[in-house]
Amino acid sequence: MTRAAAAPAGSVGVVSPTDLHFADPLALASGAQLAGYDLRYETYGTLNADRSNAVLICHALNASHHVAGTYADQPRSAGWWDNMVGPGKPIDTRRFFVIGVNNLGSCFGSTGPKSIDPATGRPYGASFPVITVEDWVTAQARLCDTLGIVRLAAVVGGSLGGMQALSWAIQYPERIGHCVAIATTPRLSAQNIAFNDVARTAIQSDPDFHGGDYYAHGVVPRRGLSVARMIGHITYLSGDDMTERFGRSLRTEDYAFGYGAEFEVESYLRYQGDKFSEYFDANTYLLITRALDYFDPARGYDGDLVRALQPAAARFLLVSFATDWRFAPARTREIVAALIANGREVSYAEIDAPHGHDAFLLDDARYHKLVAAYFDGIFQGLPGRATPAGSGGGAR
Amino acid sequence: MTRAAAAPAGSVGVVSPTDLHFADPLALASGAQLAGYDLRYETYGTLNADRSNAVLICHALNASHHVAGTYADQPRSAGWWDNMVGPGKPIDTRRFFVIGVNNLGSCFGSTGPKSIDPATGRPYGASFPVITVEDWVTAQARLCDTLGIVRLAAVVGGSLGGMQALSWAIQYPERIGHCVAIATTPRLSAQNIAFNDVARTAIQSDPDFHGGDYYAHGVVPRRGLSVARMIGHITYLSGDDMTERFGRSLRTEDYAFGYGAEFEVESYLRYQGDKFSEYFDANTYLLITRALDYFDPARGYDGDLVRALQPAAARFLLVSFATDWRFAPARTREIVAALIANGREVSYAEIDAPHGHDAFLLDDARYHKLVAAYFDGIFQGLPGRATPAGSGGGAR
Repeated sequence: MTRAAAAPAGSVGVVSPTDLHFADPLALASGAQLAGYDLRYETYGTLNADRSNAVLICHALNASHHVAGTYADQPRSAGWWDNMVGPGKPIDTRRFFVIGVNNLGSCFGSTGPKSIDPATGRPYGASFPVITVEDWVTAQARLCDTLGIVRLAAVVGGSLGGMQALSWAIQYPERIGHCVAIATTPRLSAQNIAFNDVARTAIQSDPDFHGGDYYAHGVVPRRGLSVARMIGHITYLSGDDMTERFGRSLRTEDYAFGYGAEFEVESYLRYQGDKFSEYFDANTYLLITRALDYFDPARGYDGDLVRALQPAAARFLLVSFATDWRFAPARTREIVAALIANGREVSYAEIDAPHGHDAFLLDDARYHKLVAAYFDGIFQGLPGRATPAGSGGGAR
Repeated sequence: MTRAAAAPAGSVGVVSPTDLHFADPLALASGAQLAGYDLRYETYGTLNADRSNAVLICHALNASHHVAGTYADQPRSAGWWDNMVGPGKPIDTRRFFVIGVNNLGSCFGSTGPKSIDPATGRPYGASFPVITVEDWVTAQARLCDTLGIVRLAAVVGGSLGGMQALSWAIQYPERIGHCVAIATTPRLSAQNIAFNDVARTAIQSDPDFHGGDYYAHGVVPRRGLSVARMIGHITYLSGDDMTERFGRSLRTEDYAFGYGAEFEVESYLRYQGDKFSEYFDANTYLLITRALDYFDPARGYDGDLVRALQPAAARFLLVSFATDWRFAPARTREIVAALIANGREVSYAEIDAPHGHDAFLLDDARYHKLVAAYFDGIFQGLPGRATPAGSGGGAR
């Protein structure tokens, strides 16, 4: 743990994404198939000689391949996990070759509903197939193939990203050394699905949605998308955190006796909704929330998560946050219990952070120290390194 | 407690509402005034000779004056609290004269946004003033005046109805013997306000809303209202209750790989939303959620609830439900603590019911026994009755 003292934690600096075209069709869980597709990705750090230090970062709902660093001439374009990934940061790019990839169906460069369908010359829109977590993982594995990476040192993700990390451990047990799944769940609850469905209903009932083919009409279902984001946003924060940040503070001096945004929390949420609706694609919102709904690895085993996780061979770090009511610690503990029942090596931490589900993205010293220590163990255990006796590869 | 054994609990039978016009203007908290207005109300049971047995029931967001009984030729029109109010029921209409009143701004007969403004001959729409909990209580007090009731034996309400009961205790301490406030809170939290605001945003951003004057366009912002109701509905149920009732059950045999309602919980919520949007007025939804947001009796006392409740002279029954995350037990305990600090007599019960906020409307034996016992005490303590020594008037 002298690593952090060796140099101040910094940024990976200016980065740029790469687009890769895959000509081989991708068979999807739905039975549909994608004839060909592009994946946009970024990498930070250097792949070592034996290609053993690659770490894949999986993104959640509204993020992308742009995990760390900034884009040239866009100083405020820091990646969504820039506090976690970089030189001297918990996932240290001086040690690891880190890959961020935009998932299929997203709207930040990889093929998705707003992409042009080569078969028609028009955007896919409603015809874009539903994609599952498992499909994403398959596509990510193909990206790794192309990059010449047979085995990943680790797959890491929070929330929906954690589901992908878990799915990697099940789908490609031989290709992943460590699975780091943060603020996640083995399946959505009825309440989780309900929130997703209200968000989808808001989008679908916006007259500008046009059944998903709004691109042709030159409009965007912005109102529905904004409401969807507002709903989601409430579930990312803890009630106490909202009280702490906004309380009942007014933007106006006194009650205005109207229906505009006069409480600070209203103004904040409406702003978040509007901002989101300007850059996010509504069809992608439907697709990604559905992928969340569908994720349920135990489904093929009569709900038995122990059997679902039987193929997994990785070592695991699982992290949950005490005030996360979206994916509460009890949900992660289900995963921990199922892994232990399978005899897997598991580190589990429940961080007493006040920030709800969003905590996985925030800079909490205890959380970051834990991830740093775990990745230090991964680094010490990389093939080709002299592993100090007893270090074992984990931060247990 | 031999009362319940005396006769089987029954219905008040066929009832009908009464409309009462008030010609005196009503000055509102907003500074606006309502020139004249109608209140629709129902009564059950008989007012005793000294007019001391009247109980006022205050309704929450989507309910009305129709508390108990059914309407002729509408056998499925049971009142919203028919399990609580009736002969032999916890609030026993053989003993009490029970009044249900539709609040100003609502859409079930009392003057509200969809009523015709006599000044213009058109519906009030967006010009209808914002009404507060305190305004409702003032209007309810005028109704009592008209009915010749100087002092109410009790004011009772759940959720927003509980806020009205509390406000009665503060505004008219000499006119209320008991305050029964169930599943309520002394003020909405930032999260509560946030959910209300998303609902309002969904309504306001529906193109059929027309700034609140949709009546003139012959349309109703049904889509927005439906989404608003779906959001609200999620907050009325506990997460565990939703898991119990719906889990991840599908209406389809397998995943349909689309964005329709295929999980049972989706189907249920969309149905609830659609049904609601057919009978409820969107402007009323804005108005009532704003009344919820604004309620904060401690606001005029630097947030000091003890001082806010100082005028109260009633005896209190407060009830909360363990799984109510909308208005959690801790919020009711704040009220209890403030009342005790004022030396008031308070009975408080926290019912371990699984049904979240909705529990206040449901038929839970422990809850109903408690309310029955409390009202038995009220009855025994009515003026003109020989009060058995030590019965005191409460169920403590």
